[in-house]
Amino acid sequence: MTTIKDKAAVVGIGHTAFSRRSDRSELAMAAEASMAAITDAGLTPEDIDGIVHLNMDTVNEVALQNALGIPNLRYFPVFAWANLCGAVANAAMAVATGMAANVLLFRSMNGRSQRRLGVARQVELSGGDDAFSFPFGLLTPALCDAIIARRHMHLYGTTSRQLGAVAVACRKHANMNPRAIMHGRPMTIEDHQASRTIADPLRLLDCCLESDGAGAIVITSAERAAGLPQPPAYVMAAAAGTGPRQGVHKPYASAAMAEFPETTFVAKQLFGQAGVTPGEIDVAQIYEHFTIAVIIALEDLGFCSKGEGGPFVEGGRIEIGGSLPVNTSGGNLSEVYIHGITHIIEGVRQIRGTSTAQVPNAELSFVAGPNFIPTGALIFRK
Amino acid sequence: MTTIKDKAAVVGIGHTAFSRRSDRSELAMAAEASMAAITDAGLTPEDIDGIVHLNMDTVNEVALQNALGIPNLRYFPVFAWANLCGAVANAAMAVATGMAANVLLFRSMNGRSQRRLGVARQVELSGGDDAFSFPFGLLTPALCDAIIARRHMHLYGTTSRQLGAVAVACRKHANMNPRAIMHGRPMTIEDHQASRTIADPLRLLDCCLESDGAGAIVITSAERAAGLPQPPAYVMAAAAGTGPRQGVHKPYASAAMAEFPETTFVAKQLFGQAGVTPGEIDVAQIYEHFTIAVIIALEDLGFCSKGEGGPFVEGGRIEIGGSLPVNTSGGNLSEVYIHGITHIIEGVRQIRGTSTAQVPNAELSFVAGPNFIPTGALIFRK
Repeated sequence: MTTIKDKAAVVGIGHTAFSRRSDRSELAMAAEASMAAITDAGLTPEDIDGIVHLNMDTVNEVALQNALGIPNLRYFPVFAWANLCGAVANAAMAVATGMAANVLLFRSMNGRSQRRLGVARQVELSGGDDAFSFPFGLLTPALCDAIIARRHMHLYGTTSRQLGAVAVACRKHANMNPRAIMHGRPMTIEDHQASRTIADPLRLLDCCLESDGAGAIVITSAERAAGLPQPPAYVMAAAAGTGPRQGVHKPYASAAMAEFPETTFVAKQLFGQAGVTPGEIDVAQIYEHFTIAVIIALEDLGFCSKGEGGPFVEGGRIEIGGSLPVNTSGGNLSEVYIHGITHIIEGVRQIRGTSTAQVPNAELSFVAGPNFIPTGALIFRK
Repeated sequence: MTTIKDKAAVVGIGHTAFSRRSDRSELAMAAEASMAAITDAGLTPEDIDGIVHLNMDTVNEVALQNALGIPNLRYFPVFAWANLCGAVANAAMAVATGMAANVLLFRSMNGRSQRRLGVARQVELSGGDDAFSFPFGLLTPALCDAIIARRHMHLYGTTSRQLGAVAVACRKHANMNPRAIMHGRPMTIEDHQASRTIADPLRLLDCCLESDGAGAIVITSAERAAGLPQPPAYVMAAAAGTGPRQGVHKPYASAAMAEFPETTFVAKQLFGQAGVTPGEIDVAQIYEHFTIAVIIALEDLGFCSKGEGGPFVEGGRIEIGGSLPVNTSGGNLSEVYIHGITHIIEGVRQIRGTSTAQVPNAELSFVAGPNFIPTGALIFRK
């Protein structure tokens, strides 16, 4: 059986400036980020024959194709649930089977100035399930994730200060990254503890940014990657998954209400495919709409045992210099929130050795997508 | 290089009843069609680990997973532009690379009772391009396709009676198919000529049905297919594509205004991948939102020369018994219009030998998706 292992590589990365108000269209930002990624890869728009993106993007592949002057596309699936790692897995299949040569993946959103995802009226219906939760007040991701945070605290003794340790780590890395929205704004655990409650026990500094920006990457085959200017970030493994009785930000969808069954399922496939263990990972980008997501994901991905995510994030372990630096560009909490495209870009930088919070000699760079929703993850290798 | 050629097969097909008013939800119909396809394949929901569908479907993969009791999904991209053949190509990649074992593809729509796609107010924006056409009256697919029909008549002498020959062929096949909405309603070329104008030169009987229904197929690897009850319809080739300066039902997007550049591009890939020529195809299902689409697609797919599509469809050539029977279940014009999932199902039946308008000993069964929009096509072999 052919697999995708080591068959594809990210050879180009690009992004716009990150802000709270771009004053630009999402199409203009998508085109800028895409051209930056294509140029970084040493390619031109004529070389691109695949575009993948999220189905919630307002920019479609035809609009972007025409804006960039790409002659033809032959590969253009879209992805639900902000599953950008699943999109990379799919693009890896396409280049591994010759169905596309060079694939552009982008995400562009004016998430603050145009469409605020955290506002209740803009939460999307998810196939009927919301009929059983919206009337009872589970209107936004924060309100739903607060329940699993409280449950995790109840079951395992997780504390608000442990949630804060995730926020502090992200902010520390953002302060090393001049592109980050929160660059130049240091934050302590006391700042976290003093921030106002959004959805108890989640505080303001537990929540991701609302921001404007776009990012893009170029994926090609391992063979072509060898002839391009940048050091390839090989896709060692990539996987997507849903859990049993999958919910979409629905705490009642899993029995324990303090775990992500879809994440456990993805981790099993991913590490099986790669043939490595979580302990061998050098650096990780873990999607955080809220701090609690990192703590639970670290458990369900296998980086620590169930219930030990709280202690795991303490003592600088997930900060640069710790045993598993997490979200080294500042993450969704402190760099920018554009659905994790920046986590993938930062995962590539760690392989190239160009991060502003570089892990020395990083060989295996891990990226996980959103949890509490159908998800995906990937491992880049040098 | 690994390719997808002959690596995947359709092993299950299923659908609901077809009507003008289902009185059922699109989720209920999707579940019924899916269970029928899974059962036909000799499988159970536990065997399914991938679901693919169109991004315009109101039913998402999580809702369907939960409705069917599927434990986990590991593959679930979605597809724009009604590109179901592109979805089959993608699913073939997934089974060829081991990223999924058994993939369910469905389409469910209450296209008459719930959401009428041909109504101007419901035409979707397509990335900004509509700003240059909507104000000038190009509000529906019929209004746009009428322009290319008239242009094709001007350039090549195509006649309204030739358009009618497509409608008559589809209706003839529908009258052999008890499931077809137009079964029991014979139609002559004079009926076509007497039908009222919808968008000159397109008449009522040049237009596809508005209808309710759902269909589904199950795709698996060639290895697994060999052990399942139904004769496999192997995916010999499948491809997707956009043309230069791709439009979405925009007549001005191609210079000649009487051709589908995306279709020419797809055909080149498809027949190259398969290693066969259009002349070797035994039977074809060609997506027809309007009769003119079949005439132009036959040209741009290579079944006849440019400009000869009109004469090609005359004299019973595309009817059962002719040299290239087209839309043998009645097509979008006379069986049901659910975005061409029924074309794929009928393409499989021709390989199994179970069509109600069966082409004797059909070995190569061709299916093409919508044109005048990003498109796809595939070839099934016995």
